[in-house]
Amino acid sequence: MSGEGGAVRGGGAAATVVTGIGELVTNDPARGDLLGAVGDAAVVVQDGRVAWVGPAADAPSADARVDVGGRAVVPGFVDSHTHAVFAGDRAAEFVARMAGERYDGGGIAATVAATRAADDDALRAGLRRLVAEMRAQGTTTVEVKSGYGLTVDGEARLLRLAREVTTETTFLGAHVVPPAYARDRGAYVDLVAGPMLAACAPLARWVDVFCEPAAPTAFDADEARHVLRAGIAAGLAARVHGNQLGPGPGVRLAVEVGAASVDHCTYLDDDDVDALGAGDTVATLLPLVELSTRSPYPDARRLLDAGVTVALATDCNPGTSFSTSMPLAIALAVREMRMTPGEALRAATAGGARALRRDDVGVVVVGARADLAVLDAPSHVHLAYRPGVPLVRALDLG
Amino acid sequence: MSGEGGAVRGGGAAATVVTGIGELVTNDPARGDLLGAVGDAAVVVQDGRVAWVGPAADAPSADARVDVGGRAVVPGFVDSHTHAVFAGDRAAEFVARMAGERYDGGGIAATVAATRAADDDALRAGLRRLVAEMRAQGTTTVEVKSGYGLTVDGEARLLRLAREVTTETTFLGAHVVPPAYARDRGAYVDLVAGPMLAACAPLARWVDVFCEPAAPTAFDADEARHVLRAGIAAGLAARVHGNQLGPGPGVRLAVEVGAASVDHCTYLDDDDVDALGAGDTVATLLPLVELSTRSPYPDARRLLDAGVTVALATDCNPGTSFSTSMPLAIALAVREMRMTPGEALRAATAGGARALRRDDVGVVVVGARADLAVLDAPSHVHLAYRPGVPLVRALDLG
Ligand SMILES: [Zn+2]
Ligand SMILES: [Zn+2]
Repeated sequence: MSGEGGAVRGGGAAATVVTGIGELVTNDPARGDLLGAVGDAAVVVQDGRVAWVGPAADAPSADARVDVGGRAVVPGFVDSHTHAVFAGDRAAEFVARMAGERYDGGGIAATVAATRAADDDALRAGLRRLVAEMRAQGTTTVEVKSGYGLTVDGEARLLRLAREVTTETTFLGAHVVPPAYARDRGAYVDLVAGPMLAACAPLARWVDVFCEPAAPTAFDADEARHVLRAGIAAGLAARVHGNQLGPGPGVRLAVEVGAASVDHCTYLDDDDVDALGAGDTVATLLPLVELSTRSPYPDARRLLDAGVTVALATDCNPGTSFSTSMPLAIALAVREMRMTPGEALRAATAGGARALRRDDVGVVVVGARADLAVLDAPSHVHLAYRPGVPLVRALDLG
Repeated sequence: MSGEGGAVRGGGAAATVVTGIGELVTNDPARGDLLGAVGDAAVVVQDGRVAWVGPAADAPSADARVDVGGRAVVPGFVDSHTHAVFAGDRAAEFVARMAGERYDGGGIAATVAATRAADDDALRAGLRRLVAEMRAQGTTTVEVKSGYGLTVDGEARLLRLAREVTTETTFLGAHVVPPAYARDRGAYVDLVAGPMLAACAPLARWVDVFCEPAAPTAFDADEARHVLRAGIAAGLAARVHGNQLGPGPGVRLAVEVGAASVDHCTYLDDDDVDALGAGDTVATLLPLVELSTRSPYPDARRLLDAGVTVALATDCNPGTSFSTSMPLAIALAVREMRMTPGEALRAATAGGARALRRDDVGVVVVGARADLAVLDAPSHVHLAYRPGVPLVRALDLG
């Protein structure tokens, strides 16, 4: 969550040994089980990277020592799907939705209007507050999408701000079709795939599209494909919002274009699951959205049983999921989507890393970033076993 | 959450004005709406009590001033149902249950064995850790039950420890029938209502029974009535665990004996709802239990629509709800039980106070305890709108 892809923490070659780790989750496949867990472990950190991992009894000496007192340590969470740069909130819309009422507060358009009206400092302050909230809950890598500007300058501005907190920035000009283009959707798609992309591609790593033909303001398969292919041609890698509100082409399109991830995946048919199982597109599930919209949860078991890589993320946004809590996403994945606590933790760490095509986060192996989260508990199981309790924080090693 | 019923904070007559309150929830019926909300408010605190409440513009001067920067302030949560004094955890049982497996780790008996084996210092440390966790999440009044001793000395010991953190201590010798008494339940009921009650009554305010005839280790209506009536005769006030696992006599028994609260209330028939509506027994709902046991949620709307006073509590215990999070209980009440955010907050504050027959907590009125919780948000709605996020903390004034 620094502005650079390198070490998050201060330089210098001094080594710190983190010891007293009751349970260390490494996600290292070389260690055998799902989580690559090591009991009574230590980690040596140097220059912001993991320099050594193993049993505490074998740990090399180091310049400094941090004892976590028997607590569990896990890789920092990788929140691979957020819309964290925006202004305003939509609390009234939430209240109305929970009351079962229709509410025409404007939905995404309300956030677009508030965001356009906000100056950079206000947007920056809001984004930084959310990133701090994430870090206080154990998230050490975050993806941030644009999508509340919907003009050339507006989208570029959001990506510039997002780049201040992460390298994982996503151009989402194709979030919704703005009302002014409702009768000429083609013109908006051309704007997104043309001048908007040209302005945003240097500021983003990813291109994303909300592909949901059933939603009138979202994009159908042809529109989405056009934007994604243009983004890929401009050097971006692809990810897709798909199959959230009903069956649709999002998942298959994501696999077709080689997207790193397709996100939501609530309504899948057998072909969708087969396509995901055969490809290497991650299925990113966002259970905090289902919690906050009272919607059916995706069928994680079906995906896992088909060999699909599953990630968990927050989808933090002011409309459908105003949460930054990866721990609650894990607890809901276990309660509502029948993932095991281990599968859910893996999805929130290594799964998220895979969804961002990163191998330096989501794992605790030599050479990886030293992004560790410490739990006020003896085992990772407590993340699901103790829902709502603020148990986990990113470990600051100075 | 102090050992005494009086002020929780340091004495002296110096007054502190808490100002910059963007939204103050008072639960004061004199202010009209459900939450008695005041915008741009101030509260003056003196000697641990509320000395003045009103618009910030009218606030009297004070010796000290705390500005909460536009945040919302609500009454500290009243968690009226916990089993927070115990040893050990049951993480493996949780994992098995979530996997849909049967697990004979012993259930409550496992916690009884671990608790009996723990010394006072270990139990005290665990209890204090949980109370600190609660306070860090905005809970300022907590009830604590015995029930993991199940002997005369064991129950008295747990109540002595509980009294160190709260005046709201509950004798729950009738938690389960210990295995040794399985063939002579009557002897256990006589022990509870006789020598165990005699030892525990001086240490408790409340007597509670797990009345659930469908569960072989719980108590039927006659057994429960016997224990409750004996407790009342010994000077205790009554509360009941009832109607959690199936329809049963718990609710009607609670109303019959004038219990302050009947807790769980998942399976209710029309007679139960009518009885609650006609009496003044609170229905305390525990949605974190349903979350952690994958059970159906109680029908809060039916109770509210019948005029029943509803409370929310955590049921914090290592088996079915190892959570201290009143904010998550609120979010689940809104998502899963169709309470409004205002109804859920009221249930978690004034509702809990009513369930403990207290009028000095759960409200922000002159003379009440100055138990305030501050939200990192402009409105109480964010408690439900921002699930999982650690937004709220008890305000320390001194
Ligand atoms: Zn999204
Ligand atoms: Zn209970």
